Amino acid sequence: MVHRVAVIGAGPSGLTSMKACLEEGMMPTCFESSDDIGGLWRFKEVSEPNRANIYRSLTINISKEMMSFSDFPVQADYPNYMHHSKIQNYFRMYAEHFKLLKHIRFQTLVKNVNQTPDFSRTGQWEVVTENKDGKEERHVFDAVICCSGHYSYPNLPLKEFPGIETFEGEYFHTWDYKGPEDMVGKKVVVIGIGNSGSDIAVESSRVAEQVYLSTRRGAWVIRQVSDNGLPVDIKYLTRFVHILSQLLPIRVLNWLCETKLNAMYDHTMYALKPKHRFFNQIPVINDDLPLKILSGSVIIKPNVKEICGSSVVFEDGSTVENVDTIVLQQHPTLAVVGFIHAFGAIMTQAEMQARWVSRVFNGQVKLPSNQAMIKSVDKDTKDIEKNYIVSRLTPLHVDFVTYMDDLAGEIGVRPSLLWLFFTDYQMFKMVLWGPVTSYQYRLKGPGKWDGARRAISTTLNRVYQPLKTRQLETKEASVAGSLFKLSLTLMAGGAAVYYIHVRNPTTIPTLLANLRPQTA
Amino acid sequence: MVHRVAVIGAGPSGLTSMKACLEEGMMPTCFESSDDIGGLWRFKEVSEPNRANIYRSLTINISKEMMSFSDFPVQADYPNYMHHSKIQNYFRMYAEHFKLLKHIRFQTLVKNVNQTPDFSRTGQWEVVTENKDGKEERHVFDAVICCSGHYSYPNLPLKEFPGIETFEGEYFHTWDYKGPEDMVGKKVVVIGIGNSGSDIAVESSRVAEQVYLSTRRGAWVIRQVSDNGLPVDIKYLTRFVHILSQLLPIRVLNWLCETKLNAMYDHTMYALKPKHRFFNQIPVINDDLPLKILSGSVIIKPNVKEICGSSVVFEDGSTVENVDTIVLQQHPTLAVVGFIHAFGAIMTQAEMQARWVSRVFNGQVKLPSNQAMIKSVDKDTKDIEKNYIVSRLTPLHVDFVTYMDDLAGEIGVRPSLLWLFFTDYQMFKMVLWGPVTSYQYRLKGPGKWDGARRAISTTLNRVYQPLKTRQLETKEASVAGSLFKLSLTLMAGGAAVYYIHVRNPTTIPTLLANLRPQTA
Repeated sequence: MVHRVAVIGAGPSGLTSMKACLEEGMMPTCFESSDDIGGLWRFKEVSEPNRANIYRSLTINISKEMMSFSDFPVQADYPNYMHHSKIQNYFRMYAEHFKLLKHIRFQTLVKNVNQTPDFSRTGQWEVVTENKDGKEERHVFDAVICCSGHYSYPNLPLKEFPGIETFEGEYFHTWDYKGPEDMVGKKVVVIGIGNSGSDIAVESSRVAEQVYLSTRRGAWVIRQVSDNGLPVDIKYLTRFVHILSQLLPIRVLNWLCETKLNAMYDHTMYALKPKHRFFNQIPVINDDLPLKILSGSVIIKPNVKEICGSSVVFEDGSTVENVDTIVLQQHPTLAVVGFIHAFGAIMTQAEMQARWVSRVFNGQVKLPSNQAMIKSVDKDTKDIEKNYIVSRLTPLHVDFVTYMDDLAGEIGVRPSLLWLFFTDYQMFKMVLWGPVTSYQYRLKGPGKWDGARRAISTTLNRVYQPLKTRQLETKEASVAGSLFKLSLTLMAGGAAVYYIHVRNPTTIPTLLANLRPQTA
Repeated sequence: MVHRVAVIGAGPSGLTSMKACLEEGMMPTCFESSDDIGGLWRFKEVSEPNRANIYRSLTINISKEMMSFSDFPVQADYPNYMHHSKIQNYFRMYAEHFKLLKHIRFQTLVKNVNQTPDFSRTGQWEVVTENKDGKEERHVFDAVICCSGHYSYPNLPLKEFPGIETFEGEYFHTWDYKGPEDMVGKKVVVIGIGNSGSDIAVESSRVAEQVYLSTRRGAWVIRQVSDNGLPVDIKYLTRFVHILSQLLPIRVLNWLCETKLNAMYDHTMYALKPKHRFFNQIPVINDDLPLKILSGSVIIKPNVKEICGSSVVFEDGSTVENVDTIVLQQHPTLAVVGFIHAFGAIMTQAEMQARWVSRVFNGQVKLPSNQAMIKSVDKDTKDIEKNYIVSRLTPLHVDFVTYMDDLAGEIGVRPSLLWLFFTDYQMFKMVLWGPVTSYQYRLKGPGKWDGARRAISTTLNRVYQPLKTRQLETKEASVAGSLFKLSLTLMAGGAAVYYIHVRNPTTIPTLLANLRPQTA
C-alpha cells in the first residue's frame, strides 16, 4: 500500500499531483528546485539555466475555462486568455486553497531516483536530493510522480545550420528571449514557425527594421478569437464536435478545417501553406501574424540553407543580407508535462493523469498486465505515427477528449451522456454541446465535486464576466438560434448516445507510456 | 487664364496638386514649411509644434492599391499595408518621377493669403511667406491650392474632463505619442477609441501593467485582414458593392455589416457595441484589439466622469486607482486633406480633387452659379447630418465611390460601364467586380494614361506579389468559383449598367465647400 509519495516539481502538474495524492489519502512530499511554485509560469527577468523560461509578454493560448482544474474554476472576472502573471496567481490560489504549500520543499533539487535494494519486496524508491547549500539527503518513498516538465533544456540544433559559426551577428534561442528591446532597428531572422517562433517574430516586428520568419514545412495558423469572438477552444473543444470528429473521415475533417482557415486568410497567398494536412500536426496559434504578413513587417521565408558571415541563404536561393540577429527555435511543442501533446490544456490533462495515477498507487485502479500495456503502447505509437508528424523530440500526440475520456473511464469519472439524457436533460445538453472542461469529470465517481454541476452551467458566465467592463443595453435572446440548436440536439443526441455507449471503452491509456522510471 | 498657382504644403495632396497643375499646363510653386515632402508621413523622432505627427510603428490602414495615385501604382513587391517609411518612399518616387521637387520651396512658411487690391479684375492672390531666417516675401499668384492638412493642431479637450488639473500622473495627447517605451509597467487610461486611440492602447498594452480604453459611444471595429486574407478595401470597395449599397436600404446594409462584424466577434460581448449603426460613422480599424480585450490587457471602459488625484472615475461609477498615464485623443478623423472623410484613401481623393480643381483653374471645367453651389452645399450638409454623426470638428463625410465618381464625371474621366460592356468586356468585369482604384479614372478623358488598363488588370498581382516569399505548389483555379462569378456578373451586369446610366450624375461635388479662401 502506497503511503508516502515523492512529487518532483511544483509546476501545475506537481501541484495537482499533490492534491490528488492528498485526496486519495496519501502523503506527498514535493521537491522543487526553484524558490517558488508555477514551474514554466514562474517568470524571471533573467533566464535561469536548466529551467523552463518564458518571455515578458507571454499570454497563454488556452482559455481559462479550459485550463481550470476540475474543482477550482479560474475566477469569473479574470480574462479568458491570461497573462502569465495571472496564471501564476491562479496556481497560488489553488495551492493555498488545497493547503499544498506545506508539502513543498523549495530550493531542493532531485539528483537521483533509484529503486531501493529491497524494491522487489517493498516497491520503494530512494530519492537523493540536494538543497541550496549543496547538502545531500536521502529519502525513501513508496511511489514517485515525476512532474519535471519538458522545457528545461533548450534544444539548439546548431549543426542543422551550416555556417552558423561564421555568423557575424548575434544568435540566441527562443528560450533566452524576454522581450523585443534588443531588436530595435535590427534585421532579424527567426527560424521555425512554432508558437514561440511566431510570437517572437510578431513582437519583434513592431520595433525591428525587418523580420523574416523561416519555416521548413509551413503551418496552419489559427486564431484565438474565434466565431462571434468566443475563445477558439470554448467554441470547438465540445463533446459534439468530438463525436463528429470520430464519425467523419479524417479527410473530410481536414477539408472542413482548412477551408475555414483559408476563408480567414488564404494560407497559399500568405506563403504559409504546409504540405501536411490540418490534423497532422498541432496548428500554430497566432492572431497577429496575418496582419504582420500583410503589412510586410514579417516576411515568410523557406528553410535556411546556410549562413555565411552576415547573410542568411534560404533554400529557394534567396538571400537576406546584413542580418543582425538570428532566433533559433526549440522543437515546437505545447507540452509542459509528461509527454502529452494535444489541442487542449496541459493543466487539465495533468490533473487527470494525477487523479488516475494516485488511484493506481493506492490500489483503487489496477494496471493491466505488462504484456497488455506494452501491446497497447505499441498500438498507440503506430496510430500516432500514422496520424501525426512525429520526431524524436515530439511528445506523445493524443486527442484531447479521447485521452481525457479514456483516463476518466479508468477511474470511473467519465460523464455518461445516456445517464444524463434520462436524469438531467439540462446537463446532458451542456455536456454534449458545451466545451469539454475538466468540471465534467467531477460530476460523479471518486472525487465527485458538488460544485461541478454549477461550474459547468456557469462556464459561459465566467467567459463573459471579464468583458463586462462597459454597460450596454441587454442582449435579446435569439429565438431562431435556440430553435435551431434544439432540433440539432434532438437529432444528434440519439446518434451520440448510441455512439458513445456502443464504442469500446477499454483502450488502455497512452499514459502508460509514461510509467517508465525516470531520473530528474 | 490661370498660369501661376501657389500650392500650400508638400504632403500627398500638395504633390498631386502640383502634378495636376503641370499636366494642365500651369506653373505651380509649392511652399512647404518643413524640410521635406510627405506631410503627415514625414516621421520625426520628436513631435514638432504646429505640424502633423505620427508614431514610430504607424502602418497605414488603406491598402497600397487603393492609395496609389492613378498613373503611378505602388511597386508590386511593397506590402499591402505599408509602414510610414515605405509610404514616404513612394511619395519620393512619385515626386521624382514627375519632376515635382524643383517646384517646392522648403522651409518656407505661408503666413498670409489675401486677395490682391485688383482682385475683382485679375482674380489674383497675394501670398506672404517667411523663410527659416525669418525673411518675409510677397508673391502674386493666379490661384491658390491649400493642402495644409488637418492634423496640425492637436485638440486637447481638457475642459471635458473635470479634475484633470488635479491629476498626479502624466497626461499627453495621441499627437505626442511616439512609442510605448514610457508605458512599461504603468497603469494607462486611453480616452477615445478612434484609430489612434485603439492603436496606442493595443501597443501600450504589450508593456503596460494594464490599459483601459474609455469610449463614450463605443465603436464598430473592423479588420484589415478581410475574407480570404485580402485587404478589406480591396475586397469591399468595389463598384459592385457600391451599386448594391445604392440600391439597398441603409437599414439592410447596416444589418448586413453588423451581422458580419458580430460573427467575427460579438460587439456586445466585447463591450464595444455603439448606439449608432455601422454606416453612421467611420468604423475603427484594428486587427489586434479583439485579442487584447479577450486577454484582458485592454479593458474597455465607458466615458470618463472625472479625474481626482491619481484616480479616474467612469460614468458607470467604477474607478481605476493609481493611474500613471492618461492619453487624450484628438477628435478621431482619417482625413488629412481638405475636409474629406471617407472609407477610402485620402491620397486618391486628393488627387481627384487636384485634377478637378486644376481644370477649373485653367477654364476647362466651369463652376455652376454661386447660388447653385450654395444650394448644393446645403443639401449635402443636410444629407451628411442625416446619415452620419457629425460634430464641429468632423470633416465632410462623403461616400468614397460616389464622391470619386461625381468629381470624375465633372472632368469627364468617370469609367462608363455601358461603354466597357460593349467595347471591353474583360475591363467591364474588372471595373464592376474589382476594387475601385484610382487607375479606373485614367481609362479615358483628360489625363488618360495608357498604363491604366494594365494597372487595373494587374492589381491583384501586386496584392499577391509581396506575399510570394516562400514557394508553394501552384494553386488550382476554382472552376466552381469562376462559374458562380460569371453567372453573377451576367445577372448583375444588366442591372448595374442600367442603374449607373439612368441615375442623375449632376450632383455638384461636395468639394465646392472647400473653395472658401483660407489662410494658412
